[in-house]
Amino acid sequence: MQHMASELGSQMYDLARRLYPICRSITGEGVRKTLKILQESIPLEIKEVPSGTEVFDWVVPLEWNIREAWIKDEKGEKVVDFANHNLHILNYSIPYRGKLSLKALKEHIFCLPEKPDLIPYRTSYYNRNWGFCMTYEQLQTLEEGTYEVFIDATLASGCLNYGELVIPGESDEEFLLSTHICHPSLANDNLSGMVLLTHLAQAVLSRKNYYSYRFLFIPGTIGSITWLALNQGVLPRIKGGLVASLVGDPAPFHFKKSRRGNSTLDQVVQYVLEHSNFPFEILDFHPYGYDERQFCSPGIDLAVGNLTRSIFGYPEYHTSADNLDFISARDLSISYEVYLSVIQHWDCNQTYLNLSPMGEPQLGKRGLYQAIGGQSDSHEQQMAMLWILNQSDGSHTLLDVARKSGIPLFTLQKVAGILQQKKLLQRIH
Amino acid sequence: MQHMASELGSQMYDLARRLYPICRSITGEGVRKTLKILQESIPLEIKEVPSGTEVFDWVVPLEWNIREAWIKDEKGEKVVDFANHNLHILNYSIPYRGKLSLKALKEHIFCLPEKPDLIPYRTSYYNRNWGFCMTYEQLQTLEEGTYEVFIDATLASGCLNYGELVIPGESDEEFLLSTHICHPSLANDNLSGMVLLTHLAQAVLSRKNYYSYRFLFIPGTIGSITWLALNQGVLPRIKGGLVASLVGDPAPFHFKKSRRGNSTLDQVVQYVLEHSNFPFEILDFHPYGYDERQFCSPGIDLAVGNLTRSIFGYPEYHTSADNLDFISARDLSISYEVYLSVIQHWDCNQTYLNLSPMGEPQLGKRGLYQAIGGQSDSHEQQMAMLWILNQSDGSHTLLDVARKSGIPLFTLQKVAGILQQKKLLQRIH
Amino acid sequence: MQHMASELGSQMYDLARRLYPICRSITGEGVRKTLKILQESIPLEIKEVPSGTEVFDWVVPLEWNIREAWIKDEKGEKVVDFANHNLHILNYSIPYRGKLSLKALKEHIFCLPEKPDLIPYRTSYYNRNWGFCMTYEQLQTLEEGTYEVFIDATLASGCLNYGELVIPGESDEEFLLSTHICHPSLANDNLSGMVLLTHLAQAVLSRKNYYSYRFLFIPGTIGSITWLALNQGVLPRIKGGLVASLVGDPAPFHFKKSRRGNSTLDQVVQYVLEHSNFPFEILDFHPYGYDERQFCSPGIDLAVGNLTRSIFGYPEYHTSADNLDFISARDLSISYEVYLSVIQHWDCNQTYLNLSPMGEPQLGKRGLYQAIGGQSDSHEQQMAMLWILNQSDGSHTLLDVARKSGIPLFTLQKVAGILQQKKLLQRIH
Repeated sequence: MQHMASELGSQMYDLARRLYPICRSITGEGVRKTLKILQESIPLEIKEVPSGTEVFDWVVPLEWNIREAWIKDEKGEKVVDFANHNLHILNYSIPYRGKLSLKALKEHIFCLPEKPDLIPYRTSYYNRNWGFCMTYEQLQTLEEGTYEVFIDATLASGCLNYGELVIPGESDEEFLLSTHICHPSLANDNLSGMVLLTHLAQAVLSRKNYYSYRFLFIPGTIGSITWLALNQGVLPRIKGGLVASLVGDPAPFHFKKSRRGNSTLDQVVQYVLEHSNFPFEILDFHPYGYDERQFCSPGIDLAVGNLTRSIFGYPEYHTSADNLDFISARDLSISYEVYLSVIQHWDCNQTYLNLSPMGEPQLGKRGLYQAIGGQSDSHEQQMAMLWILNQSDGSHTLLDVARKSGIPLFTLQKVAGILQQKKLLQRIH
Repeated sequence: MQHMASELGSQMYDLARRLYPICRSITGEGVRKTLKILQESIPLEIKEVPSGTEVFDWVVPLEWNIREAWIKDEKGEKVVDFANHNLHILNYSIPYRGKLSLKALKEHIFCLPEKPDLIPYRTSYYNRNWGFCMTYEQLQTLEEGTYEVFIDATLASGCLNYGELVIPGESDEEFLLSTHICHPSLANDNLSGMVLLTHLAQAVLSRKNYYSYRFLFIPGTIGSITWLALNQGVLPRIKGGLVASLVGDPAPFHFKKSRRGNSTLDQVVQYVLEHSNFPFEILDFHPYGYDERQFCSPGIDLAVGNLTRSIFGYPEYHTSADNLDFISARDLSISYEVYLSVIQHWDCNQTYLNLSPMGEPQLGKRGLYQAIGGQSDSHEQQMAMLWILNQSDGSHTLLDVARKSGIPLFTLQKVAGILQQKKLLQRIH
Repeated sequence: MQHMASELGSQMYDLARRLYPICRSITGEGVRKTLKILQESIPLEIKEVPSGTEVFDWVVPLEWNIREAWIKDEKGEKVVDFANHNLHILNYSIPYRGKLSLKALKEHIFCLPEKPDLIPYRTSYYNRNWGFCMTYEQLQTLEEGTYEVFIDATLASGCLNYGELVIPGESDEEFLLSTHICHPSLANDNLSGMVLLTHLAQAVLSRKNYYSYRFLFIPGTIGSITWLALNQGVLPRIKGGLVASLVGDPAPFHFKKSRRGNSTLDQVVQYVLEHSNFPFEILDFHPYGYDERQFCSPGIDLAVGNLTRSIFGYPEYHTSADNLDFISARDLSISYEVYLSVIQHWDCNQTYLNLSPMGEPQLGKRGLYQAIGGQSDSHEQQMAMLWILNQSDGSHTLLDVARKSGIPLFTLQKVAGILQQKKLLQRIH
């Protein structure tokens, strides 16, 4: 497991490294290029929604593409060049060509005086503007004079793209896994989420699943709003889900619960974290963060939480320091392990009905004591039988039984399978 | 504020001083005189209910008035004289004239051996009797001999009076404020409640209110029972209320919750106390105390609590030591401040419906980031928008949102107003 | 009380001593003999259900009777003889006569290597087998050679017997008390339960009861399943109950709650234990133990708990050390006292309706202050009146009032009786 995890971690890290240089935004070529690379690993469908499409209170914006952007000083030397770092350009900058004084230019420069050596990440999706981001240190070196600015970008009718993969299970009830793909050259936020969900999808593809699993690789906010608006018929089938972000750094896990607060999703993730060996913290829902804001808006109200390592706002957040050095193969593999465990627990958290509920059924005549394997396990498995039979009145999930009995969920699942074969139990949910 | 409070405190104290010498009871001239003085400050309506009126399980009693009462010793010297202290007479004494031995007289004397220098306060409303109250020290000085007793009182058909003031708000749903006015010459119990509600009514009159506010100045027990019996049609509109008593002394606040225990009233008062700078204690409902006993009887069951400083039973309780020295302008003004804060919080604790509940509404296009004022406040106000929009599914009050978000209720109210203007929110309750 | 308890304890102990030598099982002569002895104390009805009767998922087994059983060595000396101890025979052994090598014999010998001086108690009700139980020490002394085995037992069509006693109360709603009678020569498990319920039934017979009380003396598992299957019409009337077992040893009380977890039964037993002077522990329901397993199976789900001293699995459990030295008259009487207190509290835990619920009723005109006895009690009784009147809206039991008010349940019951006489209160449950 350790070895596999380490191999998986390296694969995830390598994928993050490959995606890092691409300039992504909420629309445009960078998004498509990213999704195509993910298609090499999983059978992702790339969707497109035309600019101008009305989605709830929003409208899909014009597509943004950028080719070149720089500022030259009076000597004709480029003092800032988008070719050097994707963060240098204000994301969604309009095209611009002109000459300005330093003072006028500064109106369009973003930097972080309190973190003078870092380039900030800034966007202006819905407010037409142009600008550059640079370190505060560099800004200090700019001398008075006239600067030439060139931004070769287009804002034109096109589409919003996202990737979607539905892995059907025995039931058409779904578990949702969503991650935002709009950030350029930020490693933890959110190449980590993208590579984790890519490999998690591979694992789910190789499992026999009871639930169906839906993976979304979408631009933040407008992406989830677009998907929700166009897939309202799907929503009643989504029984739980997670937004994956910030999963590559070494911080303890942070699970922000769904708006519902005590849904099965919330219970499963807490159970998994409590039984993992990793430090963690549980946070109540709050209406800011990632796309759980949309999935948990009052008219949608899905049981979707957000499971991260760091929480947003960490020192490197939305700066050039959130780079490939900030994440590691090891931490990606640890996050993967916990996410996979959530899915494994979610998928076996069935609700059963005892078909012989009047008194205990006679286990002996069905050979159920013998059906039980190794002597050392047999006591726990016999207790598991009694617990499952006693609690299976249709109102308790296996997780409820695990909580009450202290018996691991996987043991209960195994024993429930035996009782099902003996026609003592029927899965009802 | 401090200055205003101190001015208000002095006004309240002065009013208490003016009312102190009047001999009040559950009926009679003293009550009418008291209510007329209050009418100088607020447009109180003085109601009268005839003796003999049946009110639930009770009957409005005969009206009691007293002019003179004394005990003379053999030398003809008055050893006790009602003219010296209202507490000297057993409240509701029947008229009496006669000569008695000291032994026979003692059957009609009430004193407090454990507090030998205090005159107790005693009543005999429903049990025809006569009597005097005096200090134990004085009783010890009475020599053997014959005493002459004279009580010039009348118990005759008349009426029960109470004062009522309804201040209509935008809604006809009501908040009730009730105080008992039957005690003679006891300062904390309950001139303090009477003067606080008088000034609070002035404040409510000067506010623009969402709720309607009903103030009752009523005799204890029989007064609230009478009012309830004659106003049953009003009861469904009363959404919360407080019984005001014991609000002039320096003890920490004590909030005795309503019988319902977790009504909005209970939540609001607890929130106000938690956010005040004053020490306080929360007590579960218990069926003895003041008129909350009646408002919280099982067939009435209003969300009415009792907010006091001391709780009844303090050392000076129902004795001559509960005098004008026991209360202060400062403590009256502190109690006023907390009561006013309860009303302010109650009045803005609306429930809203998000009119754009599918995903987050696009705030930018409505200029809602710009609508936000000073830079330092803007983060909290933006969080307030997200919280209100997320929680406004019709099942959460603003106070619920304040609790979850940690954002002050008044900030939420202000932001809710902005969102209402932008047609993103509708008040539903 | 102490003396009475001690007398009762001795009577219970003496009865246990008389029943100890009888070889009981789930069927057979030993059970009938036992029940007939109990009939000398209480008017128990002895029921019989024929072998082969289908009861839910089970079938009433053939009746087992045993007369003689021994193992002789080559010298013809009995090395093990059932006549010496009932535990020597595997309970429900089939008849057998034969000669075996030591090695072959050992396949049929049960002992406890970790408790080498104790004889274990073993059964094989549903798996046809024969066998002997002995101490490990004795097993070690057996020399190689041929052994002669003789078991004079019969497994034949007959019946399953149990004892039943219904003591009708004012209401046909029932409280169930059940104890298992199938164990041979084990004192705490469960002669203690049998003798306790016998004497408890005497106490209930001598009381005037509101509820009806049903006592069951039944073989474990198959007995309760049989009773349940044949008495399904009774089940809706059973509002609570206890399984009595392990009540003769000095361990603290252990109350295993019913499956419902917070039923009135659970509340009453906890209240009694909290107000007793004995140490105790409350355990959540778990689906193994005694016949509460059947009473709390999901299709039955009665509010039945299990109140013991030790919990099963103690060192002497199911061995020859669970003998008459392990229990005492003193501990039997302590357990009896707590069981009786449960019944006393259960029986007076009524729910009332205040017939004058609008405001407080006028107690004075009904002489209710005078109705109250000794001065020292009067304050508590007056508080009790107010509490009962306030809470009696039909949704609170007297126990709820006791919890909220801190007033003992018995005081509340007494005061409720007075209020009933005065037509202020009506019992509705």
